[in-house]
Amino acid sequence: MMSKTKEKRIVVIGGGTGTFVVLSGLKKYPVRLSAIVSMADSGGSNRVLRDEMGLLPTSDIRQCLVALAANNNGAETLLRKLFTYRFCRGKGIDGMTFGNLFMAALSDILQSQEKAILQTQNILKIKGEILPVTLTNTQLAAVYENGLKVIGEHHIDEPRHDIKLRIKKAFLVPQAKAYKPALEAIKKANLIVIGPGDLYTSLISNLLVKGVPEAIRRSKAKKVFIMNLMTRPGQTYGFSAKDHILAIEQYLGENVLDFAIVNSTPVPLAIVRKYQAEKACPVVDNLGNIMKPKIIRKDLLSNKVTLRILGDSLWRSLIRHDSAKLAKAIFNLL
Amino acid sequence: MMSKTKEKRIVVIGGGTGTFVVLSGLKKYPVRLSAIVSMADSGGSNRVLRDEMGLLPTSDIRQCLVALAANNNGAETLLRKLFTYRFCRGKGIDGMTFGNLFMAALSDILQSQEKAILQTQNILKIKGEILPVTLTNTQLAAVYENGLKVIGEHHIDEPRHDIKLRIKKAFLVPQAKAYKPALEAIKKANLIVIGPGDLYTSLISNLLVKGVPEAIRRSKAKKVFIMNLMTRPGQTYGFSAKDHILAIEQYLGENVLDFAIVNSTPVPLAIVRKYQAEKACPVVDNLGNIMKPKIIRKDLLSNKVTLRILGDSLWRSLIRHDSAKLAKAIFNLL
Repeated sequence: MMSKTKEKRIVVIGGGTGTFVVLSGLKKYPVRLSAIVSMADSGGSNRVLRDEMGLLPTSDIRQCLVALAANNNGAETLLRKLFTYRFCRGKGIDGMTFGNLFMAALSDILQSQEKAILQTQNILKIKGEILPVTLTNTQLAAVYENGLKVIGEHHIDEPRHDIKLRIKKAFLVPQAKAYKPALEAIKKANLIVIGPGDLYTSLISNLLVKGVPEAIRRSKAKKVFIMNLMTRPGQTYGFSAKDHILAIEQYLGENVLDFAIVNSTPVPLAIVRKYQAEKACPVVDNLGNIMKPKIIRKDLLSNKVTLRILGDSLWRSLIRHDSAKLAKAIFNLL
Repeated sequence: MMSKTKEKRIVVIGGGTGTFVVLSGLKKYPVRLSAIVSMADSGGSNRVLRDEMGLLPTSDIRQCLVALAANNNGAETLLRKLFTYRFCRGKGIDGMTFGNLFMAALSDILQSQEKAILQTQNILKIKGEILPVTLTNTQLAAVYENGLKVIGEHHIDEPRHDIKLRIKKAFLVPQAKAYKPALEAIKKANLIVIGPGDLYTSLISNLLVKGVPEAIRRSKAKKVFIMNLMTRPGQTYGFSAKDHILAIEQYLGENVLDFAIVNSTPVPLAIVRKYQAEKACPVVDNLGNIMKPKIIRKDLLSNKVTLRILGDSLWRSLIRHDSAKLAKAIFNLL
């Protein structure tokens, strides 16, 4: 076996489809990957896990598992497909994802959800490691600029209030303690990647966990933020690129991000129009040539329009970063 | 690789716990194993599969999978445990077995339940092959000695009528066509093992499939019946050993069985008493020294009292054949 001591360590912080794209690209590089994943999800399949089974939500973990799963024989490819499978028949099971049920069963058998998450990684022979940001059963909460307060990630992700409202402050109820191996990974990292992803429900939800922003600040790793392609009503309505960075800095601290990678290719008009119906727009790059974070502009757009359903969110993005282009831009920073 | 052309072929016909015990024992021998499994189950988890998902029942297949699954590394042992896991939390999922959900998801992904059953055998790296006796969606039906007629395996397995009633005639609705690979296996077999197991719902349910008894009769294999240890109210209330053989011969034909293996060790009194509450008794050996089938009497009793829940039936046996002793007695006939 070749020694892996020279492989650089990359920590990807997020959850959801954006993280799936980053991991899918980076897994082809000779790096040691750790994905730190938000545990505040409370919609869809995760609601059943939380409310009926008393388990932590695992949909974001499931997506990372699929991204990093080995792909070298038939049985494993099938296991990957199973993990993303969503039951569409049978009362009570309808809408549940197989991957979530798999981890729920394993949690019972092993009497520990933490062990179940570890063992699933063994079974799928993943490249790298997937670390829940916390094992605390916690809810994401937000206070909006008009004083409205909501508790529960799905109320933020699928708001019933005015989708233009901005979040003044996000926090966790109860306060969550960081999962130690996640802090270890941050400490040892050569590069920490935040995003892309839903700003509050996938990214800041990680930064709200006690110990996480502190560890990132202390880490000698380079820190890079991947700018989202599109705004998202309910979380980033009307947000410019600068607004995104300011929001991250509100929780991470100022002058912590070393780089921001921003797509420079215009989103095709036909797709912009599709998003307009959902009141989402391309993120306007108003960052100019600031010094910190240093702005790296590249063509990062996927030329595939993804229609595949991934994750539990009802609102699914059509345009994505190209995982190969994005991974290359990230890897070049090492 | 060693040539396997010299390995003898054993076909085990049944389903349920009895077949699990036979397969668990035989898998340690250098033989080629085929399990032919009843597909008439309609209780518990199988009801959901059939009624809500429109799939064939797979609980008996699941038990065989577990019996024959490879057992040489941690991940596979865990997969075995998962396959027998029964959800006990979560509305709608409560009572479902993970193995059934696994095969249901795979059936959707592969658009074929037959392929799903095959692929699951690959994933679990089983020793041998598991063959559904039919792919026809069929129900087991019975006419009792008093004229009562019921349709549906669970009405026979968990009767709401007088449990002392004997079945006059069992049949399938609709008539089922044999699964070709099952007929092939019977044809090529050196030894065919029927039982132990619930006489009508696990054993005769296989013999009712068009083509199966004919193939067994034509096969040059030695044919052996494994006598049940205990009677079972609703199916074999008050049955002697001879009654068992007569019932099998009613569907298989006379003078087809070459051997019957009968346990010769008395069931411990404490256990007999437990069964008495359920109106079940040890099967009385009244076979004497008949010539065909030749009776082989051996100590076959397990000295473990099994309390583990296997299968979907509500009524679970406490006393079992010892899988090692039984496998040895079967192997000696080759």
